[in-house]
Amino acid sequence: MVKFRASERMVDMLSEEMLTSYRAWLQYEPIEDQSYASNVSAYLKNVAVNLDCDEIIDNALIEWQTALGSMLQMNSAVDVGSELDQGLILKLDASYQEDTYTIDSSENLLTLTGGSSRAILYGIFHVLRLIQQRKSLDNLSIKETPKNKIRMINHWDDMDGSVERGYAGESFFFKDYKFIKDRQRIHDYARLLSSVGINALTINNVNVHKIETELVTDTYLADVKLTSDIFNQYGITMYLSINYAAPIELGVLDTADPLDENVIAFWEKTAKRVYEVVPNLGGFLVKADSENRPGPFTYNRDHAEGANMLGKALEPYGGIVIWRCFVYNNKQDWRDRKTDRARAAYDHFKPLDGKFNDNVVLQIKNGPMDFQVREPVSPLIGELKDTNQFLEFQIAQEYLGQQRHLVYLIPQWKEVLEFDTYAKGKGTKVKDIVSGEVFDNKIAGIVAVSNVGIDYNWTGHTMAQLNLYGYGRLIWNPDLTAEEIAMEWIKQTFGHDPQLIETIMKMVMPSWEAYENYTSPLGIGWMVNVSHHYGPNIDGYEYDMWGTYHYADRNGIGVDRTIATGTGYTGQYYKENQELYESIETCPDELLLFFHHVPYTHVLQSGKTVIQHIYDTHFKGVEQVEEMIEHWTSLEDKIDQRRYQDVKERLEHQLWSAKEWRDTINTYFYRKSGIADEHNRKIY
Amino acid sequence: MVKFRASERMVDMLSEEMLTSYRAWLQYEPIEDQSYASNVSAYLKNVAVNLDCDEIIDNALIEWQTALGSMLQMNSAVDVGSELDQGLILKLDASYQEDTYTIDSSENLLTLTGGSSRAILYGIFHVLRLIQQRKSLDNLSIKETPKNKIRMINHWDDMDGSVERGYAGESFFFKDYKFIKDRQRIHDYARLLSSVGINALTINNVNVHKIETELVTDTYLADVKLTSDIFNQYGITMYLSINYAAPIELGVLDTADPLDENVIAFWEKTAKRVYEVVPNLGGFLVKADSENRPGPFTYNRDHAEGANMLGKALEPYGGIVIWRCFVYNNKQDWRDRKTDRARAAYDHFKPLDGKFNDNVVLQIKNGPMDFQVREPVSPLIGELKDTNQFLEFQIAQEYLGQQRHLVYLIPQWKEVLEFDTYAKGKGTKVKDIVSGEVFDNKIAGIVAVSNVGIDYNWTGHTMAQLNLYGYGRLIWNPDLTAEEIAMEWIKQTFGHDPQLIETIMKMVMPSWEAYENYTSPLGIGWMVNVSHHYGPNIDGYEYDMWGTYHYADRNGIGVDRTIATGTGYTGQYYKENQELYESIETCPDELLLFFHHVPYTHVLQSGKTVIQHIYDTHFKGVEQVEEMIEHWTSLEDKIDQRRYQDVKERLEHQLWSAKEWRDTINTYFYRKSGIADEHNRKIY
Repeated sequence: MVKFRASERMVDMLSEEMLTSYRAWLQYEPIEDQSYASNVSAYLKNVAVNLDCDEIIDNALIEWQTALGSMLQMNSAVDVGSELDQGLILKLDASYQEDTYTIDSSENLLTLTGGSSRAILYGIFHVLRLIQQRKSLDNLSIKETPKNKIRMINHWDDMDGSVERGYAGESFFFKDYKFIKDRQRIHDYARLLSSVGINALTINNVNVHKIETELVTDTYLADVKLTSDIFNQYGITMYLSINYAAPIELGVLDTADPLDENVIAFWEKTAKRVYEVVPNLGGFLVKADSENRPGPFTYNRDHAEGANMLGKALEPYGGIVIWRCFVYNNKQDWRDRKTDRARAAYDHFKPLDGKFNDNVVLQIKNGPMDFQVREPVSPLIGELKDTNQFLEFQIAQEYLGQQRHLVYLIPQWKEVLEFDTYAKGKGTKVKDIVSGEVFDNKIAGIVAVSNVGIDYNWTGHTMAQLNLYGYGRLIWNPDLTAEEIAMEWIKQTFGHDPQLIETIMKMVMPSWEAYENYTSPLGIGWMVNVSHHYGPNIDGYEYDMWGTYHYADRNGIGVDRTIATGTGYTGQYYKENQELYESIETCPDELLLFFHHVPYTHVLQSGKTVIQHIYDTHFKGVEQVEEMIEHWTSLEDKIDQRRYQDVKERLEHQLWSAKEWRDTINTYFYRKSGIADEHNRKIY
Repeated sequence: MVKFRASERMVDMLSEEMLTSYRAWLQYEPIEDQSYASNVSAYLKNVAVNLDCDEIIDNALIEWQTALGSMLQMNSAVDVGSELDQGLILKLDASYQEDTYTIDSSENLLTLTGGSSRAILYGIFHVLRLIQQRKSLDNLSIKETPKNKIRMINHWDDMDGSVERGYAGESFFFKDYKFIKDRQRIHDYARLLSSVGINALTINNVNVHKIETELVTDTYLADVKLTSDIFNQYGITMYLSINYAAPIELGVLDTADPLDENVIAFWEKTAKRVYEVVPNLGGFLVKADSENRPGPFTYNRDHAEGANMLGKALEPYGGIVIWRCFVYNNKQDWRDRKTDRARAAYDHFKPLDGKFNDNVVLQIKNGPMDFQVREPVSPLIGELKDTNQFLEFQIAQEYLGQQRHLVYLIPQWKEVLEFDTYAKGKGTKVKDIVSGEVFDNKIAGIVAVSNVGIDYNWTGHTMAQLNLYGYGRLIWNPDLTAEEIAMEWIKQTFGHDPQLIETIMKMVMPSWEAYENYTSPLGIGWMVNVSHHYGPNIDGYEYDMWGTYHYADRNGIGVDRTIATGTGYTGQYYKENQELYESIETCPDELLLFFHHVPYTHVLQSGKTVIQHIYDTHFKGVEQVEEMIEHWTSLEDKIDQRRYQDVKERLEHQLWSAKEWRDTINTYFYRKSGIADEHNRKIY
């Protein structure tokens, strides 16, 4: 039954030294604590498989044996259909939801019951996670059901091998417009994803260029199928990003009008062929009418007409259409202060609520702009009462240091998930809306842009592995705290030394705040270099067409988005939030400049003036990075050299970059305001 | 003797409609004025060649016959060694300098006497230029000697086919790391160049990348020879840009130390082989220790040691080494206000004066920065008393609108050439130094970066042809006025309609001033987008490492480069200029911010404040572009549609871009200064 040992196949690819990085949180380090080892061993000796095996169960058992072999040097004997006194029993329970599993233990007997093969796989990873954390297996009574039904990753990989907004090397799916033949990386990636409960992904960029348009044609479908199968065997459903203009791009038609008969027929035929070859495909992801991508607007159709046409084409095969809401005017005139990009998603999609097919789902970014270090929650979330929706995060640190800066993203995402929209009165939190519970959606979930590439450690920055890990864990269970998730990850990734754990916790927990401190202040965002989005450039987007302005002058800064005197954006929120943001007195400090234009001398709720806040946070942010470096260097003899050096080099760069941010921002605002730092620190 | 008619070979490549653009100033339009035609015809009926023919003379005669066939539908009979009563006599005079020619006429006999075949070619083009301008050929008594011995073009073409800072399509020398087989373009280019007296060029980028390093090896030498031959046949000597690190790049050695025996031997061997295959090569052009290019600094050697080593290697073959002085710290810290990039060329090369070999020449950019719309003249010019030097201009409009904006560059260059350095007392003008006259240099001249590419009209913007034409004419004779040059060009390019001539003159003459008006003010320069250098970005380079800052704050703007309180840059000039620039009272307005940091309320010599000057010039600059458009559209029925539309579309883009500049600059400085426009015009 056991076909191969995954960790051995890894060895073919990388040196042993690199493998430690590559294994990420699936280290399965040998257990040195003999008392713990002997306590758990009894539960692990045998496995009784009381269910019909499939490839997912195969992979679960391979994982089990690999892990136990590595951690305990034991070979857990697998038997089908037998009963046990000691060991692990696997069984299905048809009354469970698909992804639900329970783990019960008593007297050296561990029972894992799942709603599906995939649930069993998740349960196996759960037990292994417990062991990697050295938790007891005694008297377990665990029931896990994921909060979100669909837990998805989006890749922005192009077929030339590049990754748009990729900071961890090239694609491991594509190179030179071909699928990469060696699929071991994909297999290992599927392991990592399923170990944290991811059950869906797209492999190609939402910006679908010429060649990538052919992914839905026979040119590539056989390869699509091979890739999809690997993910399927880890319980992950694959989707494809498609080009809305495919009928034109492929030279079949001269229109992509969603109401045109030939266009409808084109997509019906395309769907038919795609599902003939790849029957398990999840569906299509579409970025239409966005940042120069074609879409229904070209034909004076609305997004519902566009999405539903595709939805109907996929219906016979159970496929779904994921339609991105990242639609805004990207040819804005900076002179025009009335147009407000923040309004765009709501203005476009709120009027269409209820008009989408059952198998269409709208994908909404967490904030109204674009994955900035600080944004309010998108007001569209809570306003769509009769439309399937996904919440979209970005694990790739496009605006958050591009995986050269250590930034732990879970605290940011938790704020989003815990945000109270008041959509159905107090307590209507984002996490309950996007899970589908509040509005009883048929399709619901969370999606995020991947941060991985072909780098030997997957994510460029070793610490960025935590964001991938944490993403999976958080969307499975949004009630986990950021601390719990980080703690789990540290133990599995770096081991159990208490000083090590405490030190890394001190590095990761304040890292988002530190990044916010030394970059753009008080919710204003942007201030980065154009197009590559790295490093400070305060006016970088100020006189450009992207709708991303700060309006700083010699007196003050900020965007007036109030109903009273501004763009009216605050009116897109439910009353309680509207009032909160509308008033300069109640608007939270950290979002003040997002909602209001204020003088530098305005006194924040913190008691500081805006200008002094800018100076203070920027000096502090750099100090926080200096502390991170101190912490990390104290761990030199507790971590393997490769990972130690990898992180150390990036931290040193982060410090350099943080100083660039600090000095550029402080100098810019000092030059503009003429107001000196109260503490007389060095401003250039 | 006549091998082919050049203009007929052009026809093979382009449609007739495109050919009008392609012919540039060698239109040779049929002469409709019958009285003029009959007056000149007698001079043109026969040609008596009283000299030994070579390929240059061949090409001169081809040009002659092509032109007369086209303009007068006549076939000028060529005879060798005969005497004539009427017609053109060609002869050499050994007492003339190489490029000197005389043209004398009386009673229908035209005598062209040259110091060389090349001088004859120039004389032929001179006569054709007269005819194209409908000038009389009666009683001519012309003697022409070029002011500058070497009159050179630098291409920044890469072998992949791209052109660094190219705005007129790809290279017509290279594609996909090969020489382009069809060399007709090169032939026609050589015609254009020699028609205005250019006698030297490099074909490859000064930034010599990996593959291009092999141009001096047998991989490419046969192709180098073929290309060089075409230019030679028009009196143009070809040079190659070389990679200083070639010994390393080619994998031969692990050092490029100029004092290393093996390095010396490498270059001797390379030179030997190069000259075996391409005996007419002019030599090497080198960009070393500049913008990340390798150089002698790597080995703690100075530039004289680096250049002389190459000089000695070329000496046996009469080759020369052209060594660029564009050396500065491009990893500067913007916080450091003491380091001044403007000082760099002088600081590096002045101490080396007199240390360079006789066959080494230093190539000095016209200004201390980098081809900005307004810079002072490089203080190095006049300080090298015992060193060969070239002055470098840029015809490619890198910072001057990238051939999408109409900017006539001759007025700018004339200011440079007429600048009094006071190197040997009053009246020591740049034009007399770079010509070699002042310091009696063995090698001297002017070089400029090419603005051509494979576009059907050579230069992208039809009007940019004027800058190529004008460059050749100006460096041949710097005493020509900008008006004279423009007038010559208009007549040859567009014809003789008086309204057309007057209108185009009104467009081109103020165009540099207009561009300066709507872009960066008062000599401060930069304020463009990083790396591509197009469009306004006022802080684009402000917090960067390139040494290009404006230091604008809420009170004022400018770089203090005085001896008294600044970087001391003014001290690099001779006393008279030093005093002129050092004092805020005498410093010319147009360079004020280059030399001084002043408040926005500082009153210029013009009587305006700095801030009002900024507003006024920016509103005016846009109006000037609007006037250009009015002028041009008035010519719609006087110009062929292709060229009319080409220019019109670019003018419309220029207007859009000028408005972007105007509004960005005005808004930026209004936000910063808080000072309103006196005339209350729209500032955003």
